[in-house]
Amino acid sequence: MDYAYGPGRNHLFVPGPANIPEQVIRAMNRNNEDHRSPAIPTMTKTLLDDVKKIFKTTSGTPFIIPTTGTGAWESALTNTLSPGDRIVSFLIGQFSLLWIDQQRRLNFNIDVIQSDWGQAANLEVFASTLAADTGHNIKAICIVHNETTTGVVNNLAAVRKLLDQYQHPALLLVDGVSSIGALDFRMDEWGVDVALTSSQKALSMPTGMGILCASPKALEALKTAKSVRFFFDWKDYLKFYELGTFWPYTPSIQLLYGLRATLDLIFEEGLDNVIARHSRLAKATRLAVAAWGLKNCAQKEEWYSDAVTAVLVPPHIDSLEIVRRAWKKYNLSLGLGLNKVAGKVFRIGHLGNINELQLLGCLAGVEMVLMDVGYPVKLGSGVAAACAYLQNTVP
Amino acid sequence: MDYAYGPGRNHLFVPGPANIPEQVIRAMNRNNEDHRSPAIPTMTKTLLDDVKKIFKTTSGTPFIIPTTGTGAWESALTNTLSPGDRIVSFLIGQFSLLWIDQQRRLNFNIDVIQSDWGQAANLEVFASTLAADTGHNIKAICIVHNETTTGVVNNLAAVRKLLDQYQHPALLLVDGVSSIGALDFRMDEWGVDVALTSSQKALSMPTGMGILCASPKALEALKTAKSVRFFFDWKDYLKFYELGTFWPYTPSIQLLYGLRATLDLIFEEGLDNVIARHSRLAKATRLAVAAWGLKNCAQKEEWYSDAVTAVLVPPHIDSLEIVRRAWKKYNLSLGLGLNKVAGKVFRIGHLGNINELQLLGCLAGVEMVLMDVGYPVKLGSGVAAACAYLQNTVP
Amino acid sequence: MDYAYGPGRNHLFVPGPANIPEQVIRAMNRNNEDHRSPAIPTMTKTLLDDVKKIFKTTSGTPFIIPTTGTGAWESALTNTLSPGDRIVSFLIGQFSLLWIDQQRRLNFNIDVIQSDWGQAANLEVFASTLAADTGHNIKAICIVHNETTTGVVNNLAAVRKLLDQYQHPALLLVDGVSSIGALDFRMDEWGVDVALTSSQKALSMPTGMGILCASPKALEALKTAKSVRFFFDWKDYLKFYELGTFWPYTPSIQLLYGLRATLDLIFEEGLDNVIARHSRLAKATRLAVAAWGLKNCAQKEEWYSDAVTAVLVPPHIDSLEIVRRAWKKYNLSLGLGLNKVAGKVFRIGHLGNINELQLLGCLAGVEMVLMDVGYPVKLGSGVAAACAYLQNTVP
Amino acid sequence: MDYAYGPGRNHLFVPGPANIPEQVIRAMNRNNEDHRSPAIPTMTKTLLDDVKKIFKTTSGTPFIIPTTGTGAWESALTNTLSPGDRIVSFLIGQFSLLWIDQQRRLNFNIDVIQSDWGQAANLEVFASTLAADTGHNIKAICIVHNETTTGVVNNLAAVRKLLDQYQHPALLLVDGVSSIGALDFRMDEWGVDVALTSSQKALSMPTGMGILCASPKALEALKTAKSVRFFFDWKDYLKFYELGTFWPYTPSIQLLYGLRATLDLIFEEGLDNVIARHSRLAKATRLAVAAWGLKNCAQKEEWYSDAVTAVLVPPHIDSLEIVRRAWKKYNLSLGLGLNKVAGKVFRIGHLGNINELQLLGCLAGVEMVLMDVGYPVKLGSGVAAACAYLQNTVP
Repeated sequence: MDYAYGPGRNHLFVPGPANIPEQVIRAMNRNNEDHRSPAIPTMTKTLLDDVKKIFKTTSGTPFIIPTTGTGAWESALTNTLSPGDRIVSFLIGQFSLLWIDQQRRLNFNIDVIQSDWGQAANLEVFASTLAADTGHNIKAICIVHNETTTGVVNNLAAVRKLLDQYQHPALLLVDGVSSIGALDFRMDEWGVDVALTSSQKALSMPTGMGILCASPKALEALKTAKSVRFFFDWKDYLKFYELGTFWPYTPSIQLLYGLRATLDLIFEEGLDNVIARHSRLAKATRLAVAAWGLKNCAQKEEWYSDAVTAVLVPPHIDSLEIVRRAWKKYNLSLGLGLNKVAGKVFRIGHLGNINELQLLGCLAGVEMVLMDVGYPVKLGSGVAAACAYLQNTVP
Repeated sequence: MDYAYGPGRNHLFVPGPANIPEQVIRAMNRNNEDHRSPAIPTMTKTLLDDVKKIFKTTSGTPFIIPTTGTGAWESALTNTLSPGDRIVSFLIGQFSLLWIDQQRRLNFNIDVIQSDWGQAANLEVFASTLAADTGHNIKAICIVHNETTTGVVNNLAAVRKLLDQYQHPALLLVDGVSSIGALDFRMDEWGVDVALTSSQKALSMPTGMGILCASPKALEALKTAKSVRFFFDWKDYLKFYELGTFWPYTPSIQLLYGLRATLDLIFEEGLDNVIARHSRLAKATRLAVAAWGLKNCAQKEEWYSDAVTAVLVPPHIDSLEIVRRAWKKYNLSLGLGLNKVAGKVFRIGHLGNINELQLLGCLAGVEMVLMDVGYPVKLGSGVAAACAYLQNTVP
Repeated sequence: MDYAYGPGRNHLFVPGPANIPEQVIRAMNRNNEDHRSPAIPTMTKTLLDDVKKIFKTTSGTPFIIPTTGTGAWESALTNTLSPGDRIVSFLIGQFSLLWIDQQRRLNFNIDVIQSDWGQAANLEVFASTLAADTGHNIKAICIVHNETTTGVVNNLAAVRKLLDQYQHPALLLVDGVSSIGALDFRMDEWGVDVALTSSQKALSMPTGMGILCASPKALEALKTAKSVRFFFDWKDYLKFYELGTFWPYTPSIQLLYGLRATLDLIFEEGLDNVIARHSRLAKATRLAVAAWGLKNCAQKEEWYSDAVTAVLVPPHIDSLEIVRRAWKKYNLSLGLGLNKVAGKVFRIGHLGNINELQLLGCLAGVEMVLMDVGYPVKLGSGVAAACAYLQNTVP
Repeated sequence: MDYAYGPGRNHLFVPGPANIPEQVIRAMNRNNEDHRSPAIPTMTKTLLDDVKKIFKTTSGTPFIIPTTGTGAWESALTNTLSPGDRIVSFLIGQFSLLWIDQQRRLNFNIDVIQSDWGQAANLEVFASTLAADTGHNIKAICIVHNETTTGVVNNLAAVRKLLDQYQHPALLLVDGVSSIGALDFRMDEWGVDVALTSSQKALSMPTGMGILCASPKALEALKTAKSVRFFFDWKDYLKFYELGTFWPYTPSIQLLYGLRATLDLIFEEGLDNVIARHSRLAKATRLAVAAWGLKNCAQKEEWYSDAVTAVLVPPHIDSLEIVRRAWKKYNLSLGLGLNKVAGKVFRIGHLGNINELQLLGCLAGVEMVLMDVGYPVKLGSGVAAACAYLQNTVP
């Protein structure tokens, strides 16, 4: 039966949920508490303040909602928009597709700008769309910063630049689920109006927290947004912020302590060092992929994600079989190929609180699985390429 | 500063979050896992099956949603109703009020049947309402099984009986947040169409799971329910049930293991024994309250809740001061009085995985606090009354 | 079968192992580490320094040995004495008896000064013994500070005074297993030469650490002590202290972190406050015992222990039955009567990291058990007496 | 300051303490309990029975002592021998040296049979020694099964064969600290009289348990063994075994549950599979060492240890620098070279609950460190060699 594990640690390299460091596991190892005691608001205040640092915003208002990334999406949309509002949304992979599906089902009016899976958002089409929208009918731009399916990162600075160039007032809503805390992300500098992430990704926690920051402009939009909402309504949060009790309903005590611990770890390492580490591990992964003679699903170097690498396999190999064997034979969890790239890619998630040797163990595992499925890999080649780079760059 | 604790354990007697047993804390003490591995669906299947036993349903379909009780409410409403649908809702305390607020903001059309706070649902008015609705315009009845604010339990069997008597087809939606797993609850027998609870109450887990069961009639209603929804949409769950992967988005791995552990504990003790224990602890609490010369906020014995006791304090005493002192001086967490009964009641939550001596420690603490605030309690009187009963009835 | 537990927390009121606070459980929730890395010596140094504060010594040298209290006894004796050395040892209960048994089997020559069980060390006989020993043949005085069997505390200051009065150079070896960290203990002021405790008592940790401090005079004795020893040899520790690696063999990484956490808790509360809390809880317990009409096994008030209360039961009642029922019916762990007082006393341990309401729950449980076994207790009487005192004295 | 850690998991590859699996960490995550309740003896009985399976003995009597391997040594010696007894002891590395030091300081009369460090026990000299001892003055043979310093395993079957050949009645005392549970070990078949291990090695637990099994012949020797002992005295254990309470003094509750969990894991995997896994990981490590152009400290293939590999470094490289950098730069804990091989070897521990990818991460780390210190390693070479073997042999 499959509900069993072998000896040793599971090697968790899906692009989320990410590995939880022992310090965070420890912090969450506790009984419940009364969230209405004086202790919890005191701690909550530090969390809200510190979460903003991860988003690189000083003007934003943070919301920590007991939900997942999918719920955070819904929260971003329904608090800033009204049914029928026109949205421009970029479709570049499975997660942008799911968000667009949500946007549709929440009754917005979507202009989808499609790219091939493996490409970033098509900014030329976007520019034309903005240029054409002289009446400013477009109320929001929805973009996934890091598309986890294909390992493609979108250029938010360029998106902002175009909005500015066309002096377009649309809100900029960013899914940073697999980027914030892992990749360079600058909410204020890039004029992001709503940015969101969830706890089980770069923050290396269990699932259960959707974390958002809203710009002053987004809070202004909140006043007139007519989307039906209750659980996700920021107004309730804002009311409780004023009361100083912070929570309109019961938060997870354990996740609050876990968030405190993970933020402490990030600040201790230094957020910029955390981002540099992600960059280093991603580069090492890509060097390994190249050494294996395989291709990155992301088609251009500028689009390569530092959070996850989607690896294309040759046509005669089923990437699903790679993922299955990795789990069963090596206790290695890799990411599946989804939808259009199902069977064609497997994914190595390298986000969150991990280090070089964890990644190298994963890469060695991938090499063995590749050989298992008949791909003529030279064993050690990927690890060698990664090591050569890491040995020179680890601080 | 208030963000600090004294020696020894916190005595957690708010009516949720409840105490988490060590076995459940241990089960959750783990790293993340890939929720797309074969292991998680295998476990999920056992959880969905076993959750139904707690609801006493065989025909219901369970949903375990990463949210809170508030989210579970929203899920129950939006999956079965359409905007403008007429609902009968009973207002008997703060949580029924909040649910009604949600019903309003989700654009339903509410007939509120009010009771004084301290009374159960007014079934006479309800009977007239049903009698008058010969056109069957009422689509749903919303009722809180156990009103946590006042410690009042509603008679669901009587509600069902009236619906049957008038052959009324309205859906029966029940908030069982503070009842299911603590009080006698019989989804199938009482013809409940949607029942819901959340993890941090009688299930003695952290916050983070909204758990619902939907009757076949509720699933039929799902097909035509036009309420806008995405995160809470059961259709996505049902789709993934068919696929055998179960989760439309990432669940909390830790809570899955925690739920497994807490269900195992309940089945080991025996669900009926669990309910009998709640009854025993509640009776003991009420005997203590009477011995102190204080009154139960619930006005009739048949309404007394076995999950929480709301205690009325004399007019010259501020119940908030009782709660504050209990926390600060005795590390005892009691429930505040809310809204209409703010300052007038404090609450002793006795739901979840606790035992007699835990409760007696709490009762002793309450006695001391009562004396602290100037109420002329006879020290030991409540504990004595509780002990006399428990000593005879503990198995 | 007996290897099972009921719902709720176990109420642990044996006089050790004591309750472990959540903070300490969390601190120990970790993988192993290399004890030869730079991190462990750095932490060890802080532990050795801070342990001295608990013993109230500045001139003593601490040893933290992976063993139990029994091993700590052996370490104290074999490092300071030679086979055949004459020792004066006080026999006042089971633990002093066991230590004397050890002293015999380790080939020392023991003068036993006996007291009735329930009495403290006979200092008159001791004075005569010292007076008679003009040749200073007595090499060491062995005394249990707090005799856990009978709840009797010995007056160490008086022992020191007699030694000084007779200008007797004997070493003063003190078993502080159930006292240090709970009762007033002053190693330097009282001229104690070896003091010892173990981790699972007042320090509220798991079993596994014997902790000793040795005075300069004890270290001088070490140079010539011919007792055969290896595992317990302080010389190996001192050698590794000089090397700065601290551990002659592998320590428990988990217990090191646990000790760090428990010391932090003690210093945060304040050692004197910790001792005052023990005094308060003990006084409350004794008031309850008196209210029940029962007697303390300790025969004089000046001997009453603040760490454990041994309660005498009437002749027709078997105290073993009390302990058995408490465990089985109420999940309450009380201490058995041992040896001479088997069947005659049960014991309430109130040492370690606990608070008032935990104790009151225990006292309520004892009342019910007393009634269960047919003792005509007035239910609530003990709790009332304890509450009346605590309500006035809790800070 | 050095008392700090980087991101990600520590890679623990010292030859003990070994990695603790999550299941065991969870099992130990608990409050204390009364070791005199009915529950603990019930569990203890299963532990004593199951520990024998790990030693492959049915006739042996197990002892679980709250101590370390050093204490277990002392327990083995003092319970079976008398001061002045003649012992034959094999010196082949630092741990056999330490044991011999203990044997001396406990006043036995030692015939040391030395080998070069890197060689196994010299059985030719042993044969001559036995041949010469026609009067059977030799009371015991002390041998370290697996010498952790040099990664050399001794041939116990051959030792037994010689004893049988010369019909020599000496007791065979075996240090199995780094072998039992990792290497093939057969107490009964090899006629071992006392075998011992400790919890932090192959059993993958924290330090704190010395575990021994004694043959009927060893228990016979116990009757007349005059070595002074108390803490380590088996007679006290046997007395408590008869009483059915099992513990002469307080055990660590947490370690009992940890042992239960680790034994369950071993039996689930299958002891023979556990041993095969150790063999596989060791072989992979040796292939990597060879690929790096380095030599095993163990001089012959038949002596290679499957628990730890000691790697010789070229004369111009200081192995201490390798260990330091591995820790500091890669969060990799390797074993130091000790005593005669200090600076000359570093050690890779591959015992306990680990798997292939964990090891490969370590090997990749070693490659990078080798390059860091100027050794001309071909990056990837060791990993490639290990992968080529593992890919074919992992079940």
